[in-house]
Amino acid sequence: MRHTDTLPTEAPLQNSTKDRVRLLISCPDRPGIVASVSQFLYEHGGNIVQSDQHTTDPENGMFFMRIEADFHRSNSEGMEQAFSDIAGKFDMDWRVEHAGQKKRLAIFVSKEDHCLLELLWQWKSGNLDVEMAFVASNHPTLRETVEEMGIPFYHFPVTADNKRKVERAQEDLIRKYRVDLIVLARYMQILTPQFTAAFPNRIINIHHSFLPAFVGANPYARAYERGVKLIGATAHYVTDELDEGPIIEQDVQRVNHRDQVEDLKQIGKYIERIVLARAVRWHIEDRILTYENKTIVFS
Amino acid sequence: MRHTDTLPTEAPLQNSTKDRVRLLISCPDRPGIVASVSQFLYEHGGNIVQSDQHTTDPENGMFFMRIEADFHRSNSEGMEQAFSDIAGKFDMDWRVEHAGQKKRLAIFVSKEDHCLLELLWQWKSGNLDVEMAFVASNHPTLRETVEEMGIPFYHFPVTADNKRKVERAQEDLIRKYRVDLIVLARYMQILTPQFTAAFPNRIINIHHSFLPAFVGANPYARAYERGVKLIGATAHYVTDELDEGPIIEQDVQRVNHRDQVEDLKQIGKYIERIVLARAVRWHIEDRILTYENKTIVFS
Amino acid sequence: MRHTDTLPTEAPLQNSTKDRVRLLISCPDRPGIVASVSQFLYEHGGNIVQSDQHTTDPENGMFFMRIEADFHRSNSEGMEQAFSDIAGKFDMDWRVEHAGQKKRLAIFVSKEDHCLLELLWQWKSGNLDVEMAFVASNHPTLRETVEEMGIPFYHFPVTADNKRKVERAQEDLIRKYRVDLIVLARYMQILTPQFTAAFPNRIINIHHSFLPAFVGANPYARAYERGVKLIGATAHYVTDELDEGPIIEQDVQRVNHRDQVEDLKQIGKYIERIVLARAVRWHIEDRILTYENKTIVFS
Amino acid sequence: MRHTDTLPTEAPLQNSTKDRVRLLISCPDRPGIVASVSQFLYEHGGNIVQSDQHTTDPENGMFFMRIEADFHRSNSEGMEQAFSDIAGKFDMDWRVEHAGQKKRLAIFVSKEDHCLLELLWQWKSGNLDVEMAFVASNHPTLRETVEEMGIPFYHFPVTADNKRKVERAQEDLIRKYRVDLIVLARYMQILTPQFTAAFPNRIINIHHSFLPAFVGANPYARAYERGVKLIGATAHYVTDELDEGPIIEQDVQRVNHRDQVEDLKQIGKYIERIVLARAVRWHIEDRILTYENKTIVFS
Repeated sequence: MRHTDTLPTEAPLQNSTKDRVRLLISCPDRPGIVASVSQFLYEHGGNIVQSDQHTTDPENGMFFMRIEADFHRSNSEGMEQAFSDIAGKFDMDWRVEHAGQKKRLAIFVSKEDHCLLELLWQWKSGNLDVEMAFVASNHPTLRETVEEMGIPFYHFPVTADNKRKVERAQEDLIRKYRVDLIVLARYMQILTPQFTAAFPNRIINIHHSFLPAFVGANPYARAYERGVKLIGATAHYVTDELDEGPIIEQDVQRVNHRDQVEDLKQIGKYIERIVLARAVRWHIEDRILTYENKTIVFS
Repeated sequence: MRHTDTLPTEAPLQNSTKDRVRLLISCPDRPGIVASVSQFLYEHGGNIVQSDQHTTDPENGMFFMRIEADFHRSNSEGMEQAFSDIAGKFDMDWRVEHAGQKKRLAIFVSKEDHCLLELLWQWKSGNLDVEMAFVASNHPTLRETVEEMGIPFYHFPVTADNKRKVERAQEDLIRKYRVDLIVLARYMQILTPQFTAAFPNRIINIHHSFLPAFVGANPYARAYERGVKLIGATAHYVTDELDEGPIIEQDVQRVNHRDQVEDLKQIGKYIERIVLARAVRWHIEDRILTYENKTIVFS
Repeated sequence: MRHTDTLPTEAPLQNSTKDRVRLLISCPDRPGIVASVSQFLYEHGGNIVQSDQHTTDPENGMFFMRIEADFHRSNSEGMEQAFSDIAGKFDMDWRVEHAGQKKRLAIFVSKEDHCLLELLWQWKSGNLDVEMAFVASNHPTLRETVEEMGIPFYHFPVTADNKRKVERAQEDLIRKYRVDLIVLARYMQILTPQFTAAFPNRIINIHHSFLPAFVGANPYARAYERGVKLIGATAHYVTDELDEGPIIEQDVQRVNHRDQVEDLKQIGKYIERIVLARAVRWHIEDRILTYENKTIVFS
Repeated sequence: MRHTDTLPTEAPLQNSTKDRVRLLISCPDRPGIVASVSQFLYEHGGNIVQSDQHTTDPENGMFFMRIEADFHRSNSEGMEQAFSDIAGKFDMDWRVEHAGQKKRLAIFVSKEDHCLLELLWQWKSGNLDVEMAFVASNHPTLRETVEEMGIPFYHFPVTADNKRKVERAQEDLIRKYRVDLIVLARYMQILTPQFTAAFPNRIINIHHSFLPAFVGANPYARAYERGVKLIGATAHYVTDELDEGPIIEQDVQRVNHRDQVEDLKQIGKYIERIVLARAVRWHIEDRILTYENKTIVFS
């Protein structure tokens, strides 16, 4: 192994010329994957900053990996091309993301503002490192809130008849703004299979229950009826089956017999905000892979 | 209100002569209930140590109350008779429990020992202030564990054919041992409506999921399939609808993509033990009232 | 007990004429307190909606009580006068609060906006039922944020020399605006004993650690140094001993070895916001009594 | 990279011939470490099952790694020798653990049984994959409990005068039984620096508070005095500074004003048991590295 004989003596990378790259890989598990990938990164001048992997089963399982590595900008550019050789040999699904390239968000809302405000507040304070492309809503309620922060607001009145037509207009906007992630921040509209199929693993919804309990409408009222002692919220990628997409994050909060439906809604707002914000952040940081309707979230 | 003119000057109650009484009341809400009850207790020499109440709705709601009061033994004896006057006027469901009178437990188990051991361990260390009447099981697996602790163990092999016959034998034991509470500590058998109807609000089951998610069999396998990020356990009173009785307590624990079904089962054991032990303790301390398939748990 | 012979037949109270009263009592425990108080409320036409009590010790302990009761406006007016008889007999510290009368808040901040924004956001969305009197800060940073929401903003540059002078100006404002509660939403200034003594149990601070761990400055940096696995926040009433006042609420969040000081700060923001908001809400709802540097928080 | 041209076609490893190896590495961060290590494992026929790494800082930081890999027994044997080449080049602290080789535990207790019982119960049920070497105590109280489970029990009455003498006898036992890990399951004795220095990162203590709050004696009484709203427990490696060793795990539970010191102790028992059991499990699974008095716990 000659490559260890002469250890690199270069100066640390300067921020101006540094490119932090995230490499995400899914493939059938086989011996040699980590060796090949890490050798490749080493030969291209990458310094691995973080690396996580997951194997579903030691025998004939699937292998998943997320590597963060720092490159000289000059080195990372040709990397994707070169990597396709390895990728081919191991039959990889893979992608490269550049941490320096901010993702573009579109947020879909209805009338409730708490999830929207949480994301906007985190974005404004520098916590959520994205570009806000636009906010779309089926109600004009939140126009002022959104526009005051300098974000375009689009009002799409949705009826039973025009649903698909509205979605096509929304798809146009998503393309126009080159949106990377659509966040349903309590949008309260069921999307058509055509829309969800157009953006696989790129639409995150917050459902206001601990799924799979209380799929569908009015989860807090049903939680009250059932007399549960904890209420929850679930962030998941949207698929064409309602509330059945891969779960990204869930959390709960304790309630008791004194809490009426209205109290559950208020307590639930906290959980919804936190759970959605976490899921969006993990997506933005390219921490999530999906497999068999489940998520692998690299911490 | 002359009773406040001369405040009691008696010496504090001695433990030997003290009777700690718990009064539990459910009735339609009306002005004057608390005044009447507390006046009654005062006149009978009771000193209120703890008092909780809950009203479902300020207008035409239901009223629930739990009072703990210390009496001289001589005073508490005739109390029940005297209280029935007030109870009649306010149309109360009510009962009096004496804290000094230990409740008698029967535990039903199958092969898994973790919930049983938690209860036995708490009992042995003085944490759970009950008498252990007996343990019943459809398997002989845990006989030694139970008998070593000096508790009678009854083995009832259950088949599709003899289910009701076994239950009748179990009912006989329950009567013979004057059992107050039956705990299904992972019993894994579905009880007949006849059995459950015989012991309303006196059978506590631990279900190994966060109800109403994963009602029925194999909840951990189904939780794994769904890719949830938290797993839970639920203690509830048993009714004739499977896993649909009033929920007493629930809790959850975080899991992630690395956890296989077997891991979920191991992690779940902790939650099951803790949730069941809490529910049993609250029942033993007469903290639970049920109403419309929900519990009021006075803390 | 003649008062139970004729049960009230009045129609439920209308909102327009209803006065929801909260009665808070602290006194030495004695038999007869609950009876006297509830009888008093009954005779004055009050319907008890919620009632909680706490006794530190069944023998010679202290007794604490919070009662919420609905009155006809005409009845509640003379109530305070009449109640002082009972209060005198039982040697009570007591006060009456009217739920319909909004409390007035002053918020003190420095440069960090997350705690301020949480309170403003909850207030704007109707969740926090208060009047915002003013915001005071030792930096002009958040002026625009505050004034945009129609709330007066006062900038007080604080130096080592003018501290007490600034406080006197702030005290004038507090009196002018008839402020009920001062919230230190990451104010980062140590108040003088003169200031804190002027507003006992009326100043709530959020400390960014799980007290009593990391009293004083830079708790996140010290938490990182110590390698803790959970970080926390604590809301407490301010006394003249730094970070030693009665704790109202605390919560924690899990962290791990990957989290640098900067991550702890970001994660901590969530906890600070939630813990402070809960404490403010409980104060506003008159749920908190203090005794021996501890709080009793009636749920 | 010829090694990827011909992918291994061997049959999956059979359990009988399989050796699951855990490689733990600490060294200064440099490019090429992961490449070298994974290439080495690949060339020695290892299949990486799990791999985690942590870098304290992308520039001039420390690098930590834990790899689990499956080998043919024939291959893993010479591995340690061969690996020392790489280790030397990168200036590594490293060790190899074999998952199939059970670690040997000694448990030190006083009179309280809850932490001991949790470990014994998990061990008996197959959850904790260790060999129980012996239990040592300064009281004879738990002898029967321990010996009934077939574990040697040693009673060492400790006085101010004989402390070091007792420790020397304990050290002899530890050597005789070839103990890998000493667990202080509420031992309540302060060990001498000589003893702790003899077993660095091999003594785990459970402290019954959320450190660094309430270092030292009587943490529950002090938690009660301070009026905290959560109580906690901390598992840590023992160093010669009391309660100051690297923290492995912490957890908390909510308490309220009703809870007296005795209640805190009871609630705390749950947390102590769970926190200690987690820490022991992570140690047993070789998931913990220490650095600058902190732990890296690979999940």
